[in-house]
Amino acid sequence: MNSFVYDIPVKVYFGENQLGHLGEELSKFGKRVLLTYGGGSIKRIGLYDKVMAEIKNAGLEVFELSGIEPNPRIDSVRKGAQICKDEKIDVLLAVGGGSTLDATKWMAAGACVDFDAWDFFNEKWAPVEKALPVVTILTLAATGSEMDAGVVISNPETKDKIGRIAEPLLPKVSFLDPTNTYTVSPYQTACGSADMMSHIIEVYFNMNQDLYMLDCFMEGMMKTIIKYTPVAMKEPENYEARANLMWTSSWAINGFVNGGKQQAWSCHPMEHELSAIYDITHGLGLAILTPRWMEYCLDETTVSKYVQFGVNVFGIDAALEPMAIAKQSIEKLSDFFFNTLGLKRTFTEVGIKAEDFPIMAKKACGDGILPGFKPLAQKDIEKIFEMCL
Amino acid sequence: MNSFVYDIPVKVYFGENQLGHLGEELSKFGKRVLLTYGGGSIKRIGLYDKVMAEIKNAGLEVFELSGIEPNPRIDSVRKGAQICKDEKIDVLLAVGGGSTLDATKWMAAGACVDFDAWDFFNEKWAPVEKALPVVTILTLAATGSEMDAGVVISNPETKDKIGRIAEPLLPKVSFLDPTNTYTVSPYQTACGSADMMSHIIEVYFNMNQDLYMLDCFMEGMMKTIIKYTPVAMKEPENYEARANLMWTSSWAINGFVNGGKQQAWSCHPMEHELSAIYDITHGLGLAILTPRWMEYCLDETTVSKYVQFGVNVFGIDAALEPMAIAKQSIEKLSDFFFNTLGLKRTFTEVGIKAEDFPIMAKKACGDGILPGFKPLAQKDIEKIFEMCL
Repeated sequence: MNSFVYDIPVKVYFGENQLGHLGEELSKFGKRVLLTYGGGSIKRIGLYDKVMAEIKNAGLEVFELSGIEPNPRIDSVRKGAQICKDEKIDVLLAVGGGSTLDATKWMAAGACVDFDAWDFFNEKWAPVEKALPVVTILTLAATGSEMDAGVVISNPETKDKIGRIAEPLLPKVSFLDPTNTYTVSPYQTACGSADMMSHIIEVYFNMNQDLYMLDCFMEGMMKTIIKYTPVAMKEPENYEARANLMWTSSWAINGFVNGGKQQAWSCHPMEHELSAIYDITHGLGLAILTPRWMEYCLDETTVSKYVQFGVNVFGIDAALEPMAIAKQSIEKLSDFFFNTLGLKRTFTEVGIKAEDFPIMAKKACGDGILPGFKPLAQKDIEKIFEMCL
Repeated sequence: MNSFVYDIPVKVYFGENQLGHLGEELSKFGKRVLLTYGGGSIKRIGLYDKVMAEIKNAGLEVFELSGIEPNPRIDSVRKGAQICKDEKIDVLLAVGGGSTLDATKWMAAGACVDFDAWDFFNEKWAPVEKALPVVTILTLAATGSEMDAGVVISNPETKDKIGRIAEPLLPKVSFLDPTNTYTVSPYQTACGSADMMSHIIEVYFNMNQDLYMLDCFMEGMMKTIIKYTPVAMKEPENYEARANLMWTSSWAINGFVNGGKQQAWSCHPMEHELSAIYDITHGLGLAILTPRWMEYCLDETTVSKYVQFGVNVFGIDAALEPMAIAKQSIEKLSDFFFNTLGLKRTFTEVGIKAEDFPIMAKKACGDGILPGFKPLAQKDIEKIFEMCL
C-alpha cells in the first residue's frame, strides 16, 4: 500500500442561498475580478444577474470574458490570460461547467508567465509554479474541476487535447448550488454522470492493494450515480437527485479516493483523442469506451475486481461463477449507459470513423504504452476502438 | 436538505516513512516547538527519538510537556498553555492518541488568552477566536482529533468533561503512519473502534433528509471497522488493517459525513458523564451505551433507519419484516462489541453504580432535554442507563 499526501484545501459552499458569501470570499483576494462564462446559459437562468449584484455590493470591479466553449480551447485561455495581465486582475470567478472552470484555471496559470499558455504543453512541459486565485460557481455536475487541481485544454490547430494537474490550479472556493443545475438537459445530465462514473472506474479498477474503506466509498458514489441520474433526467428540479450528483462530481475526482494508488488512467486518455478530433461530448465518448475497455481487460488475473464491482455496485449474486459475475457487471454498466441513460452506443452512431483509429490510438499511448489497469499498446487501443463500432 | 460549508484544510501525510517532512512542516510556523505526549509509550516504540532527530535536523528549538493523561485534564492544559506563553512557542507538536491531541489543541487556544483555559467552559462560554498552530503525529486510531476542530477536556475537581468545537483548533498538519499503531493493545484497539463506530452512528441515525452518497460512505466506514478491528486485534502488525482503521478514524468525524445535518449527538454526551466520574475509557462507555440507546429509540417512526443500517452494514435479509431487521441490527452490533471485540457488556462489570444515574443523567441533558435522534429528558437517560446495568 502506497503512502500519500492528502491536501485539498478547497472551501465549498454547498446548497441553496449561499451566494451571499461570494462578495466576502472574492474580497479576500483583491478588488479586480475577471468573470468568465460560456455561451450565456447563466444569463437565461438568472445566475448572471445574481452574481453581478453580489460583486457590485462588495464594491469590486468586474471584467468579463464570455463564450468559453465546450472542450475549451487554448484561444479562450489566451484571451483570459491577456485580460488578467492588462487589467491587473486579482481573482478569477468562473461560472459554468467543467469547460469554463478548466479554461479559467488555465488562464490563472497563464496570467503568471511570460510565455504563451499553450507552451506549458510543449516538449518543455514547463512546471505550473503559480496561478492567480480562482473561485468557481458550478452549473453542471460532471468533471469535478470545482475541487481538483486538473485542467484539460484543446488546441484545434494541432488537434491536441491535453490534461495537466498542478496544485496551484486548485480553486480557492467553490459554490455548489444544486438548483443551478436544474436546467441541465437530460442528455447533458447523462453525459455528466458518465464522466463521473468513469472518474471512479479509472481508480477503482486496480489490482494493487487497496484501502477497502475507499473502495466502499467509490462503490457508494457509483450507486449514487446509478440511483439519481435517471431521477434528475425525469425530474430536473429534484433537489435530492441534483444534490447527490453534484457532491459526487467533486469527490469522484478530488484525489481522496486515490489513497496512494499510483495507477495511470486508461479511458480518459483514449477519449481525449476522440474529442480532440470529433469534438464530441467527453462523457458520451467515455460511456461508449468504458464497457468495451472493461471487456478487453477482463481475464483470470483481473476478474476479482469485476466481481467486487458487480456484487457491490449492481447487487449481482455473489454465489455465481466469478467470470459470469464479471460479464454480467459489464452488461449492467452498458445497460445503465445505453438503455437507462439513453446514450448512443457506438462510434458509428456519433460519426467516429475507423480511418482515424490508428492516429488516435497512436496519440493515446504517446507512441509507446498507455499504462493503467492493463498496459495498452497502439494495437490494443485500436482493438478497443473497433469494439466500439 | 440543509446547506453547509465544507472547509477542512488539514494536510495529512499518510503512510510509512513520511516523517522526513516533519521538519519542513514545523518550520513553516516558526522556530520554537512545544512537543507534547502522554505516558511515554512513544519512547518505547522509538518514535520519540525519530521525532527529536527530525526537529533537531530542521534546526528548531524544542520544549517538552509529557504526562498527558487519558481523558485529558485541564491541569495539563494549563501547564502547556503556560509554557507556550513563557517560552514564546510558535507551534505545538502533539504525539499520541486523542487525549494528547485534544489537550494540545486546547493548550494552543489557552496560549492566546489572558484568562484560565477552563474559563472557556464556564457560563461565559468565551469564543475560541485563535490558537497557535498544531501539528500532530497520531498513535491511536479512535477520536479523529487529528483532522477535526474538536476537543474534550476533563476537570476532576468539578467532575466535568466538556467538549468544544472551534475552527482555530483544526490541526494544520497530521502525520498518520499506521505502523505507529502496531503496539496498541487489542483492548485499546477495540475501544478505539467502538469510538469511531459511535461517531458514525451519531450522524447516521437521523430521520432528516440525507445525502444518500454520504450514507453510503458511512456504511462503508462501518463495514471497514467491522472487517478490520478483529484483524488488528489478532495481528497487531497487519498494515492493511491498521491503515484502514486509521484513515477511517479521521473521516468518521472530520465533518464531511454531516453534509449539512444539524442533529445533535446522543451517546457522546451521555458517555462523557460516565467517564467524568468513573474515568473509564471513552470507547468502552460508548460500546455499552450505544446498543441500549438504539433499543430505546426504536419505534415505528424510526424503524426505517435501522432497516437501512441492518441491511447495508450487516447484510441482514431485506425481505424480513422491518421491525425484525431493526432488532437484528441491534443484536449484530451488540455481538460485534461484546463478542467479537470482547468488550465488557454492562455498567456493573465496569463498576458504574445506579446511585450516580440521576446526577449523570441530569448533567447529560443540561437540566433540560438532550436533543438528537430522539430528544431525551433526564428520565429517558436514566432508563437507558438502567438498561446498561
